Amino acid sequence: MIKTITDIAGVYAGAIAAGIKPNRLDLAVIHVPKAVGSAAVFTTNKAEAACVTYSRKLCKRNILKAVVVNAGNANAATGDEGLQNAKKMGKLTAESLGLRPGEVGVASTGVIGVQLPIAKVEAGIQSLLSKPLGQDGMSAAKAIMTTDLTDKHVFVEAKIGKKVIEIAGIAKGSGMIAPNMGTMLGFLVTNADIQTDLLQTMLLEATQKSFNMVTVDGDTSTNDAVFLFATGERKINLNSDDRALFQSLLTEACTVLAKQIAKDGEGATKLIEIQVNGAASHRDAAVIAKTVGESPLVKTAVHGEDPNWGRVLAAVGRAPEIKCNQAKIDIQFAGTTVFSGGAPTIFDRDAVHQAMAADTIVIVIDMNLGKGSATAWGCDLTRGYVDINVAYS
Amino acid sequence: MIKTITDIAGVYAGAIAAGIKPNRLDLAVIHVPKAVGSAAVFTTNKAEAACVTYSRKLCKRNILKAVVVNAGNANAATGDEGLQNAKKMGKLTAESLGLRPGEVGVASTGVIGVQLPIAKVEAGIQSLLSKPLGQDGMSAAKAIMTTDLTDKHVFVEAKIGKKVIEIAGIAKGSGMIAPNMGTMLGFLVTNADIQTDLLQTMLLEATQKSFNMVTVDGDTSTNDAVFLFATGERKINLNSDDRALFQSLLTEACTVLAKQIAKDGEGATKLIEIQVNGAASHRDAAVIAKTVGESPLVKTAVHGEDPNWGRVLAAVGRAPEIKCNQAKIDIQFAGTTVFSGGAPTIFDRDAVHQAMAADTIVIVIDMNLGKGSATAWGCDLTRGYVDINVAYS
Repeated sequence: MIKTITDIAGVYAGAIAAGIKPNRLDLAVIHVPKAVGSAAVFTTNKAEAACVTYSRKLCKRNILKAVVVNAGNANAATGDEGLQNAKKMGKLTAESLGLRPGEVGVASTGVIGVQLPIAKVEAGIQSLLSKPLGQDGMSAAKAIMTTDLTDKHVFVEAKIGKKVIEIAGIAKGSGMIAPNMGTMLGFLVTNADIQTDLLQTMLLEATQKSFNMVTVDGDTSTNDAVFLFATGERKINLNSDDRALFQSLLTEACTVLAKQIAKDGEGATKLIEIQVNGAASHRDAAVIAKTVGESPLVKTAVHGEDPNWGRVLAAVGRAPEIKCNQAKIDIQFAGTTVFSGGAPTIFDRDAVHQAMAADTIVIVIDMNLGKGSATAWGCDLTRGYVDINVAYS
Repeated sequence: MIKTITDIAGVYAGAIAAGIKPNRLDLAVIHVPKAVGSAAVFTTNKAEAACVTYSRKLCKRNILKAVVVNAGNANAATGDEGLQNAKKMGKLTAESLGLRPGEVGVASTGVIGVQLPIAKVEAGIQSLLSKPLGQDGMSAAKAIMTTDLTDKHVFVEAKIGKKVIEIAGIAKGSGMIAPNMGTMLGFLVTNADIQTDLLQTMLLEATQKSFNMVTVDGDTSTNDAVFLFATGERKINLNSDDRALFQSLLTEACTVLAKQIAKDGEGATKLIEIQVNGAASHRDAAVIAKTVGESPLVKTAVHGEDPNWGRVLAAVGRAPEIKCNQAKIDIQFAGTTVFSGGAPTIFDRDAVHQAMAADTIVIVIDMNLGKGSATAWGCDLTRGYVDINVAYS
């Protein structure tokens, strides 16, 4: 049995088919009535959506206690009318839940540049919240999907001090999916007692190592958003090692979702994990890992199950502003060293080709320069990606 | 009749099938015996090929009078043996032409990480240069192709002062072509009398606005190189407007080749020209134009003949470190304004869709912030690109 956000006590969620997308769940509300802290991280895209502009502002001044999300329309590039619609969504949800408008975040994913069908959205919110929200996190996870093939959940727990701390989350894919679309959304909850400021710092750190290390096609969405709510049920000692334990549990939860997003990239058949070690700095390692993960040539090679270290090396070499000495670089595909000290090794190419039939392909790059390390996740590039994105809407 | 490099007096070239690639021309020599100046620009990829390392060094201290080029093997990631082989190629060519070794540049394109078949290369050079080189620039342009579909030539001329100044060039594609491959090579000549230092400055400026604004898949090759030779036949007044005229003629020549390269990108069916105006700076304009040109979503939309300004806007917004106010942005596809002042316009979508059936699609982005402008060239992303690059070698 898969566990999800509503398996944490005090977390309520539900979804409805509001008619924004035909014949499926497309509107969800998550409600954490006793939230003691909340945090959110948003897209860095300067052409950010109205819902991002609206929610970003709220988060700075309030503890969020709920979030309303729709699929089917991104409310992006919709100008002032879009901002008003985001506000309407949030306000109506707040009224229905007995919250202040500032306590409700808003997220949208779908077509860009078309105004939200706000009448449908409002009717959906009213209908969904006409009776008390249950604990249906599974439906919420389905309602936020666009052309994701699978709903995405995480539930992790660890004993921190004497308490069992839980973190759960749902997410939707980062593939740039239907025409004008492409958003990763994540919604996490924890039963820990952590307030907004610290929660924000910890979510940022977790996001850097997880969602920000996922690349499907390098096209940052206008709508990306990750929210985290703390129910406050379990106290933890934030002046001890327990804080680091919580941070690593949170990073783990985000990483589990991030890998699900990469694996469900548009047209993808394989998850690619790029581990970079020995870089001059962590920053260098992260840039290298993402540059390799974004390379169309590396992605097509992995689809062809080809241990094509030449393409990996060329991507490393063009990574911006990194230290690099090609005579020191080692590259492994699926556990076999194929390039070492500036030259290809002698290896059983057919054996590595066969090993690359797996669903997950690990590429390890050792720069042999320093102690910087990072891991990124991507997916292969297939005809499926082209077919999905060429379709004229 | 197409004119090429050897239509400039004093420029000699020839090619031979040396057996590096099966059954086709794969080795060329260009010789400008009376060159008064030379310039060269190389890849910024830190994993640069042996021939780049070798030639880069020579150019700093010598006027190049010839260049030897092979297709079929990039001599990249080949360590010290590779560097020795580059040296052997250059040295043998110099001896055969009666030049000093320092006067001969070397360029290679093809598979990475496999040592050059140096015996074949040397036999080819000896055979090609056993009699005087003719003026067969057409064959040289064919010999440097990898899986380019067409050979690429430019010949431009203008009256500068009282003299007719000519610039001619050949190039090969920037598509990342066969497994482990991907190089753009350009070789230009002029009859103007311009010495090495100034020629280098002018080639750099022309390259920034032309070859560096081409993007097929964002994967910078380990082998990119552009060479320029001046025969010195025609004096020009370098302390007058004539210098600016020559610069613009050189930029035009490079641009003509750059566009041919973009159009012949792997699997491409359309040339995309992205014009950015009104950016806060020229640097911003160039970054925006290239980010849009590299976007897989924009490239697939153009293949689908879809005026998908949402994808363009999202790419603009994620361009690194640029000034952007989405409420000021205008976007045109194929001459029709589809987005203006932060909102989509009302336009005849089917008419624009039909206009996008053309071979060349122009996207104009006006940031309405300042005076920065730049143009980039790319191509559409098709199943053909995936098919070419997935093939397991």
